[in-house]
Amino acid sequence: MAQMKELKRAYGFDDVAIAPGEITLNPEGVDTSFKFDGHEFKIPFLASAMDAVVNPSFAGELSRLGGLAVLNLDGLQTRYEDTESIYSDIASTPREEATAFLQKIYSQPVRDDLVSRRVEEIKASGATCAVSLTPANTKRLAPLLKEAGAEILVVQSTVTTVRHISKSLRGLVFSDLIESLGLPVLVGNTVSPEVTRQLMEEGVSGILVGVGPGAACTSREVLGIGVPQVTATIQTAYARDQYFEDTGRYVPIITDGGIRTGGDVCKSIAAGADAVMIGTPFAQAKEAPGLGFNWGMATPHASLPRGTRIQVGTKASLEQILLGPSSLTDGTQNLVGALEISMGMVGAATVREMHQAEMIIAPSIKTEGKIFQHAGLGS
Amino acid sequence: MAQMKELKRAYGFDDVAIAPGEITLNPEGVDTSFKFDGHEFKIPFLASAMDAVVNPSFAGELSRLGGLAVLNLDGLQTRYEDTESIYSDIASTPREEATAFLQKIYSQPVRDDLVSRRVEEIKASGATCAVSLTPANTKRLAPLLKEAGAEILVVQSTVTTVRHISKSLRGLVFSDLIESLGLPVLVGNTVSPEVTRQLMEEGVSGILVGVGPGAACTSREVLGIGVPQVTATIQTAYARDQYFEDTGRYVPIITDGGIRTGGDVCKSIAAGADAVMIGTPFAQAKEAPGLGFNWGMATPHASLPRGTRIQVGTKASLEQILLGPSSLTDGTQNLVGALEISMGMVGAATVREMHQAEMIIAPSIKTEGKIFQHAGLGS
Amino acid sequence: MAQMKELKRAYGFDDVAIAPGEITLNPEGVDTSFKFDGHEFKIPFLASAMDAVVNPSFAGELSRLGGLAVLNLDGLQTRYEDTESIYSDIASTPREEATAFLQKIYSQPVRDDLVSRRVEEIKASGATCAVSLTPANTKRLAPLLKEAGAEILVVQSTVTTVRHISKSLRGLVFSDLIESLGLPVLVGNTVSPEVTRQLMEEGVSGILVGVGPGAACTSREVLGIGVPQVTATIQTAYARDQYFEDTGRYVPIITDGGIRTGGDVCKSIAAGADAVMIGTPFAQAKEAPGLGFNWGMATPHASLPRGTRIQVGTKASLEQILLGPSSLTDGTQNLVGALEISMGMVGAATVREMHQAEMIIAPSIKTEGKIFQHAGLGS
Amino acid sequence: MAQMKELKRAYGFDDVAIAPGEITLNPEGVDTSFKFDGHEFKIPFLASAMDAVVNPSFAGELSRLGGLAVLNLDGLQTRYEDTESIYSDIASTPREEATAFLQKIYSQPVRDDLVSRRVEEIKASGATCAVSLTPANTKRLAPLLKEAGAEILVVQSTVTTVRHISKSLRGLVFSDLIESLGLPVLVGNTVSPEVTRQLMEEGVSGILVGVGPGAACTSREVLGIGVPQVTATIQTAYARDQYFEDTGRYVPIITDGGIRTGGDVCKSIAAGADAVMIGTPFAQAKEAPGLGFNWGMATPHASLPRGTRIQVGTKASLEQILLGPSSLTDGTQNLVGALEISMGMVGAATVREMHQAEMIIAPSIKTEGKIFQHAGLGS
Repeated sequence: MAQMKELKRAYGFDDVAIAPGEITLNPEGVDTSFKFDGHEFKIPFLASAMDAVVNPSFAGELSRLGGLAVLNLDGLQTRYEDTESIYSDIASTPREEATAFLQKIYSQPVRDDLVSRRVEEIKASGATCAVSLTPANTKRLAPLLKEAGAEILVVQSTVTTVRHISKSLRGLVFSDLIESLGLPVLVGNTVSPEVTRQLMEEGVSGILVGVGPGAACTSREVLGIGVPQVTATIQTAYARDQYFEDTGRYVPIITDGGIRTGGDVCKSIAAGADAVMIGTPFAQAKEAPGLGFNWGMATPHASLPRGTRIQVGTKASLEQILLGPSSLTDGTQNLVGALEISMGMVGAATVREMHQAEMIIAPSIKTEGKIFQHAGLGS
Repeated sequence: MAQMKELKRAYGFDDVAIAPGEITLNPEGVDTSFKFDGHEFKIPFLASAMDAVVNPSFAGELSRLGGLAVLNLDGLQTRYEDTESIYSDIASTPREEATAFLQKIYSQPVRDDLVSRRVEEIKASGATCAVSLTPANTKRLAPLLKEAGAEILVVQSTVTTVRHISKSLRGLVFSDLIESLGLPVLVGNTVSPEVTRQLMEEGVSGILVGVGPGAACTSREVLGIGVPQVTATIQTAYARDQYFEDTGRYVPIITDGGIRTGGDVCKSIAAGADAVMIGTPFAQAKEAPGLGFNWGMATPHASLPRGTRIQVGTKASLEQILLGPSSLTDGTQNLVGALEISMGMVGAATVREMHQAEMIIAPSIKTEGKIFQHAGLGS
Repeated sequence: MAQMKELKRAYGFDDVAIAPGEITLNPEGVDTSFKFDGHEFKIPFLASAMDAVVNPSFAGELSRLGGLAVLNLDGLQTRYEDTESIYSDIASTPREEATAFLQKIYSQPVRDDLVSRRVEEIKASGATCAVSLTPANTKRLAPLLKEAGAEILVVQSTVTTVRHISKSLRGLVFSDLIESLGLPVLVGNTVSPEVTRQLMEEGVSGILVGVGPGAACTSREVLGIGVPQVTATIQTAYARDQYFEDTGRYVPIITDGGIRTGGDVCKSIAAGADAVMIGTPFAQAKEAPGLGFNWGMATPHASLPRGTRIQVGTKASLEQILLGPSSLTDGTQNLVGALEISMGMVGAATVREMHQAEMIIAPSIKTEGKIFQHAGLGS
Repeated sequence: MAQMKELKRAYGFDDVAIAPGEITLNPEGVDTSFKFDGHEFKIPFLASAMDAVVNPSFAGELSRLGGLAVLNLDGLQTRYEDTESIYSDIASTPREEATAFLQKIYSQPVRDDLVSRRVEEIKASGATCAVSLTPANTKRLAPLLKEAGAEILVVQSTVTTVRHISKSLRGLVFSDLIESLGLPVLVGNTVSPEVTRQLMEEGVSGILVGVGPGAACTSREVLGIGVPQVTATIQTAYARDQYFEDTGRYVPIITDGGIRTGGDVCKSIAAGADAVMIGTPFAQAKEAPGLGFNWGMATPHASLPRGTRIQVGTKASLEQILLGPSSLTDGTQNLVGALEISMGMVGAATVREMHQAEMIIAPSIKTEGKIFQHAGLGS
C-alpha cells in the first residue's frame, strides 16, 4: 500500500556535544589503544589512503607515534617512480590548470613493480604495512601485495555494499578475497547498519564508516547522497554491538571523513567508533608528501572531475598535530591529548567505555570574533 | 470548536540527503527514462517554459539529448517575429531600466500566426512539440496549436486548483479541455496532495509540483506562500501512488522549481518525482536564447513586477550541463551523470526504484572556504 | 513536587510559510476589511503609535487609503507646538549625539492643550481619530481626549496584564476606564492566551499582540523576554476564538511588531490576526513625519535608553507601499495587493477564512545573491 | 543488550526566550537577593575567579554594589607582589607573543605569604572575602586562607565530580574538607543533575554550573565536551529542587559561563539559577585589573595552551555595567536593571518566583543592520 516517505533526522559533528560524566579520570590513565586481528596500535588514528597524505616515510612516522597509515596503491605512488617531482609539479601548477593537470597525471597506468616496491619501503620504515585498493583492481593486485609483505589490506570505494550489480565486472566477493588472501581486510565505506552487518558476516576485520559526511561535501552537492558522521557512527556501532552479542566476534568500526578537530575525534569515539581515519588534518603535517595541498581520490564517474586541488597549508609536525604541544586553541593540534582529556572528563578508561558517553544535540555556531577560551572557570 | 492551529515541518533540498542503499549498481546500467501517455524520453529532464530558456532551437537540442523542452506561448516567441533582437535588447538594457523595459516588451499582444509558426519550428527541429499556456488564454489558443501540430500542452499558473472562483472569467474545466483537445495535458503548479488527486481525476497526464519552493523565493517574501520542494514532492507523490493503487492509472509528477545542482535532481527523484523541470541551470546553457540572463514569467498581479532580470551567466553547452564532462565540483554540470551515479549508489535500477530510497534530514551548511572533495576516501 | 522545566518551540515570520489552498479566488474578489465596535476599515492595516510614523496628516492619508493610524499622545506631538522643526533637528543630529538628544527632547512635559489640538487636527483630516496613551497617564488624559472628540483609545505598554502590582501607582482598571469613557479601547501588548482572555472579559475592543517578537529585538537582548509573532498570534487567536464561542462577542486581535514585508502581513493574518499594526515600513513612507528615521517609543526603565535612532530611509509614498504599483520584488511594497493575492491563492474570501489557511514550518534563509523570482513557472 | 545511542536536544541562551507573565510588577518592587549559609548579597552577581577580572579592589567595589567577587588564589595575585606591572606587561605584549608570555608568567610558584596578604586586602576593602582554589592545591592552601580570614571558599576545575580517579593524587574529599575547614564551600563546575545531587550530599553550600557552554567554546572545539547553559541550569536546578524536597536544605546553583547580556542573566535565573557568575562583561569594567584584556584560567592539560589573551576592551564602570544608566541597547549595561524589569514583566517578586517563568524555544538570529528597538509599541 502506498506510504508517505518519512524522514529521520541525522547529526554531524557540529550538531552534537559530549556531556561530562559522573566520575573523572586523570588523562594520563586512559587507554586509547586500537586492536584488531592481532594488530594493536597505541592511538586510534589511521591516516587516509590519499596521495597527498601518505607516502612510505609518512607511514613510518605515524607508526613511530602509535598510529597506522594506509598507502593508496591506486595513485601516484604506484604510477611514478620518482614521486617527489610529481608532488612538486602538482603544487606549482597554477590554480586554473590544476584539475586538468591532475587528470593527466593520473592517466598513467599503475605499475606492478611499484606496488611491490612501496610495500617494501613501508616495511623498511618499521611500520605495519597497510595498503588500499579500489574494488576494481583488488583481484589483480591483492596477490602481488601479499607476496611483497603487506600486512593489512583496505578495500575502499565511495559506497561499498556486499552485492554490486555490474554488467562489466563480476563483483568482488569479500569472503573469497579474505579466504584466499589470508590477511586482515578493512572495507568501506558504508553508513548503513545492514551493510555493516553483512560485511562483518563476510569476515572483514574492520569497517570504514562515512559517505558524504560533510554538509559542504561534494557527494552531497553533486549526488545528493550523504549521511552525517555522528549518526552514521552511532548506527553502524549499533550493528557492530549486535553482531558482537550474536557471535562473540568484535569487528571495529572506523569513522572516516569530515574530522577536523580534536572535538570531532572525541565525538566520533563517543558515538561508537573504535578509531578514526584522518585526511586533511594530516595533509597539513610537515611530513605529508602533498606540500600543503590535498586532492580527492575518488572519481565515481569518468565524466566527473577527480577532485579539486585544495591548498590546506603546512601547519605543524605530525607529532605536534597528534601529541602537541599546541599553541592553538582551535582544536587542530594535540588530537591525542584532546581525546585523553575528553575521556578523563567523561570518566572513560578505555575507548569502549567512551562509547557509553552521553551525547547531546547542541549545534555549534561559528561566531567570528566571539570565540573565547572557557573551561568552566567563568567567562 | 476552536482549535489551536498546528504547524507541520516541511523540507527543501538543502534540508535533506539520500542514504546509500544495501546493494550498488553500475551507473551505466540504470534506466532514467520518463514516460507518459505514449511519449517516452530518455532522460527525465524538462526545460521550463521560460522565455530566456526555451526557443525552438533549444527545444531541438534538448530533444537530441533525450529530454523535453516546453515553449512558452504567452511570451516573447509569440509577440515578436524577430526574437533575436529582442533578446539582445533585453541583455543590453542597463540594470536599473530592465524591469520597466520588460514590462514594455511584454505589453505587445500575442499573435496567432506566431503561435502556429513556433509550433512548426519546434517540429521541424525534430523535437516532440510541447508548449505552455496560462489558464487565461488556454481556451482561445488551444485549438490553434493543436491544428499546428503541437503534441503536448502544458497549462501553468502560479497556483493551480481544479476550482477557481472568478468574477471575470469562467473557470477553465480541465476535463472538458482534455476531451476536446485530444492531447496529453500537463498541469501545474500545485503542492497539495488533494489538488493532485483532483487533477488526476480530471484526466491530466502529469502534474507540475512546486509553489514558492525556495527559502529565498519571491513568493515567500511577497505573499508568504510556499512549500519546500522535498515535502511538496513527497506528498504529491503519495497522492499519485494512492491514485495508481485505486485506479491503475499512473500519472507522473514533475518537480518544478528551485533545482540548481545534480544533488537537487537526485533528491527530487528520490522524494518521488518522475521527472524534473529545470529553469536557471538551463538558462546558463550556450543554447539558451536569454544570452546569460533570466527573468520570471509570472505576474500574479498587475501591480507587482513581472520579475527581475537576473544575470545568470553562460556557463557551458547544454550537452555538458546534462551529460558532462564536468570540470566543476559544485554539482551544476553533468546532471544526468549525477543522477545515474546516485541511483547506482542507492541500488535503484529505475526511477520508480529510486522512489524507494531512504532519505534523511541533514541540513547542508554552505561553509565558505571549507568545501572539500570527499567521497568516502578519507578527508 | 519538583518538575523539570519544559520548553515549547515558538515560531516567527521567517520560520513559516503558508500552503496554497484547494480552490483559488480572483484577488479582486477578496474582502480584507477590518471591523470592531461599529468601526469598519477597508484594509486591515494600523499605523503604530510612533512619533516617526504618525502625525495628523499621516493619519489623514492612511484613512483615505482605508486604514487606521494611531497617534502617540505621550510623545513629540503633545510636547511641542511646532513639531516640524523638532523632527528636522532629530534628523540632522549627528549619530553619536542622537540618543542624548532624544532623551533631552522627550524630557519636556506633555501639554494638555496640545492633546486636544492633535485630536482636532486628525478629525479635520477626515480620519477616524485613534490615539494612544501609556497606562501611567491614561487616567489623567483620557477624559480630555474624549472631550476633544477622539473616537478610539489605544492603551499600550511593553507588557500589559490585567493585574499590575505597583507601590507607586494604583493599577489602571480597564473595565472602569471603558465604562467611564464610553469609547472603544484597544489594549496591548500581550502574547498570552490567558491575558488575552482576561482583557476581553474586561471589555476591551481589541488586543495588540506582540512582545519582543524579533529574533534581533532589544527586548530579547536586554531582558530575555519575547515571543515570536506567529506563535503569539496563533495562541492569542485561539483565546479569541474560544471567547467568541463562549460569549458570542468577537474581539479582534492585531499583530503588532516585526512586520517587514507583504509575506509577514499574510502570515500574520493566516496565523489568526484580524489586522496588523505597522511601524518601520510606514516610517519609510514619504508622508511619515520622521524624515527617513525611526526611534523606539518604549522606555521600560529610567536607566535604559529610550531607543536608538535608526535611519530607515524614505522609500515610496504610503499609497505605493500599501497599494502599489511595486517595482521591487522584496515584498516591501503593495502590501495590500500581496494580501489579496495570497488570500486568492489560499482560496480565502475574507480575513476570517484566511485564518483557516494551512501553515508549515519552513525556515527562510536569506541567501545573498541567490534570490530569484519564482512563482511556480520553472526556475 | 546492544542499544542505539539516543541524543537529547540541549539549549543555550540564544535558543530560548522568556514569555511574559499573567501579572506584572513594578521593577522597583522585586527582590533579587542571593543567600546561602548566613551570607546575603543584594544582587545575584558573582565575579569569576579570573585574574583579569578580580583583584582586591575590584572585590571591594563589587561588594559595595551588592555582589560577590571571587579572587583566584592560583594566579597572578599569589605569584607576584607587584601585580600592577605584570598586568601592564601582559597588556603591552605583542599579540603573537602573548600566549608564550602568559605561559612564562604563570610558571612562577604560588607564595603562601601572598595568599594571606590578598585575603587581608579583600577584608580591608569591606567585602565578604571569597577566594578560589583548584582541587590540586586545596588541601595545602585551605587552612592558610581560613587562618587569614577568608569567609567563602570556591573549589573549581573544568569538570568536577565527587569521585576522581587519579594515579598521582589522592582525590579531594569534599565532605572532609568542609568539616575540617568550617567555611561554606562552593564547588564547580558541573552540568549533571547526578553530580549536583552528590555534591549537595557532600555538604557543599553552592554549585557552579557550566561546562563548555558556548557554541564557540574552546572545550567544544578541542574536547567535544559541553552542555549549553539553559539546559545545564534547568537540569541542575531540578536536582536542587528534588534535594530540597527530600532534605529541606536549599543549596543554590550559580550559572557560570557564557553570560554576555542582561538577557542571558534573565534567562539563567528563569531557567532556575539562584545567581550568575560573570567573567568577560566584568573584565570590561574600568575597575577590572586586566586593562581591557581577558585570558582563560584553565589549563586542562600541560600540552594545551592556557588560554588566548583576548582584547575585550574597557567599556564602562562596574556600577554602570550593573546598575546603569545605559546608553547602549545591546544589553551589556545595567544588568541588574534588566533583571528587575524582566522579573516585573514576568510577575516574579523574587528569584525563586522567577524560576517558575515560562520559557520558549525561539532561536535568536543576529541579523546585522536589522536590530531595532522594539518593546511592543509597533515597529
